[in-house]
Amino acid sequence: MTAMTRRVWNFSAGPAAMPEPVLQRAQAELLDWHGRGMSVMEMSHRGADFTSIAHKTEADLRTLLAVPAQYKLLFLQGGALAQNAIVPLNLLPAGGVADYVDTGHWAQKSIAEARKYGEVNVAASAADAQYTCVPAQADWRPSASASYVHVTTNETIGGVEWFWIPDTGATPLVADASSHLLSRPLDVSRFGVIYAGAQKNIGPAGLTLVIVREDLLGRARRECPSVFDYAVQAKAGSMYNTPATFGIYLAGLTFEWLIAQGGLAAIERANIAKADALYAEIDRSGFYRNPVRRSDRSRMNVPFFLPDDRLNEPFLAGAAQRGLVQLKGHRAVGGMRDSIYNAMPLAGVLALVEWMREFERQHG
Amino acid sequence: MTAMTRRVWNFSAGPAAMPEPVLQRAQAELLDWHGRGMSVMEMSHRGADFTSIAHKTEADLRTLLAVPAQYKLLFLQGGALAQNAIVPLNLLPAGGVADYVDTGHWAQKSIAEARKYGEVNVAASAADAQYTCVPAQADWRPSASASYVHVTTNETIGGVEWFWIPDTGATPLVADASSHLLSRPLDVSRFGVIYAGAQKNIGPAGLTLVIVREDLLGRARRECPSVFDYAVQAKAGSMYNTPATFGIYLAGLTFEWLIAQGGLAAIERANIAKADALYAEIDRSGFYRNPVRRSDRSRMNVPFFLPDDRLNEPFLAGAAQRGLVQLKGHRAVGGMRDSIYNAMPLAGVLALVEWMREFERQHG
Repeated sequence: MTAMTRRVWNFSAGPAAMPEPVLQRAQAELLDWHGRGMSVMEMSHRGADFTSIAHKTEADLRTLLAVPAQYKLLFLQGGALAQNAIVPLNLLPAGGVADYVDTGHWAQKSIAEARKYGEVNVAASAADAQYTCVPAQADWRPSASASYVHVTTNETIGGVEWFWIPDTGATPLVADASSHLLSRPLDVSRFGVIYAGAQKNIGPAGLTLVIVREDLLGRARRECPSVFDYAVQAKAGSMYNTPATFGIYLAGLTFEWLIAQGGLAAIERANIAKADALYAEIDRSGFYRNPVRRSDRSRMNVPFFLPDDRLNEPFLAGAAQRGLVQLKGHRAVGGMRDSIYNAMPLAGVLALVEWMREFERQHG
Repeated sequence: MTAMTRRVWNFSAGPAAMPEPVLQRAQAELLDWHGRGMSVMEMSHRGADFTSIAHKTEADLRTLLAVPAQYKLLFLQGGALAQNAIVPLNLLPAGGVADYVDTGHWAQKSIAEARKYGEVNVAASAADAQYTCVPAQADWRPSASASYVHVTTNETIGGVEWFWIPDTGATPLVADASSHLLSRPLDVSRFGVIYAGAQKNIGPAGLTLVIVREDLLGRARRECPSVFDYAVQAKAGSMYNTPATFGIYLAGLTFEWLIAQGGLAAIERANIAKADALYAEIDRSGFYRNPVRRSDRSRMNVPFFLPDDRLNEPFLAGAAQRGLVQLKGHRAVGGMRDSIYNAMPLAGVLALVEWMREFERQHG
């Protein structure tokens, strides 16, 4: 925190808080990157300077996630909602079927969009459990010939996270990992495609990361827009069209910051400490309530409810006075939601816990 | 120019130079927008603060371009190359035909992409004139039942610009105006759709502006991704998915800057002065050469050729020593290309003219 700038504790679900050193570096370089007399935003994406930025960004991501060589990294646009169409446009042949696991709000968005492109088999659903858990694989009913199996590995609104990777055999596993990718190590080799909107742990909104296994390239339907054909973009190094250059630069700074923190194993330890502190406070007294099964509770998005909805506004107002902001739950579910992505320090979580205790003393 | 920062004269075709006051304001606010203790990048796109930014950005654009009420403004992602698919996905029914005018490199990209979605009739082409002019409408061969007519109103590589608007009767006119939108007043009411990648006169790469007449909404094909269905995004105020929030903010700052310059009539006068100075120098001696018909010469992108390709490298090296950068012509055509968008001051053009004269004295 600089002397000049008062920063808040920002619990936004996304676009989310970014690491302060990343923003400080971007600020320092905004009019003049490395003495070039121009902003990164003003560089040709095909010039030597931006090419070096893009290459380092990709190399650092490969290091961080230990991405196997047979996977391509694509930096696209449109967010995860665009990928909900782009995945079937790339992987689902006309007349084909895809398996989807329904874990809540974002899985349902993926399912509805995929239905525009073919048959969707909902192989499992947490509906009967009010979306408070991940359906055990023993209970799935996969189709015989699915082109892929789609999972939403962290439900940002429900606060449900997968801590295991399903075994789909030879059928490619596709994951919308938007809201927890890079929060811990991940065995990329278990997936066919992993996609994520950047605006949680990667960079600013508008950038989309796609990790795709090479053997899945070249299957796109004719009606897939060329800029979203994985094979076209893999061949072009994500520069078939002009990419979101400033977003890639900020992602690169974020990856450098993550490496400086000790990588994904270290950030996982920090994220566990933050989540443990928050869930312990929620469970301590019974005043606050989180409905998610303990083994499936998200470390990134922690929804909780007060005993009476009329307490929501006073809770939020007092929080704001203490510099704790963007805590309001998603309009679909109400209550509170604190998103504690990589950029949120433990100190911010402890400040929230302190306010939760004080509020409970006032209203409990 | 601040005392701390040495800025160059940046002639990049895009991502292009941005107005320095815009970058300075973004820099000042990067960690703390209006005392909120957070960056614009860290705000929920549905919160009151970002909503106010988005509304003001749209209102200022409506003012600048005098956009009629029956047009929707959409802030999307994917650039103009994505729109090359998204336009037919929204406007071309299966089995339909669309008319395209072939004015060069970018028109051809649009044509090739549209052919994935239906029949394309190339109603006119400048091929016989080596793409040095805009085909006169008297020579067009439109189809009887086109769903729309597509034109590329400024060819960034060829340096060919339309200074007239074709009359397509009841058939909607669709324009890729990426590289000259906002460089001068435009009669929006003559168009069905205008689209533009932001990275020339609007904002950073990754943001795409679409201006669409309301009666053209609701025609999208089933296979159009929802995030690119004009009707879906018009209804959602461009927030069906998380938009490129920082790009919208920078576009808003750019629109404020344009209004402060006196609006589009004033910026057109400045752009005429810049283009006149450059073309006058090119035409003065015969040492430099621009092949475009004078009436169709672009005010935004000025390609020129030296008498011998072996002079290209010395010209570029000497230019760089004088802080004149990103002048190399597109790899498709070679030579030089100076892009002199709104953000380029006359002083930058005059500095280039001075170097052109000096170089001619050395090598002429």
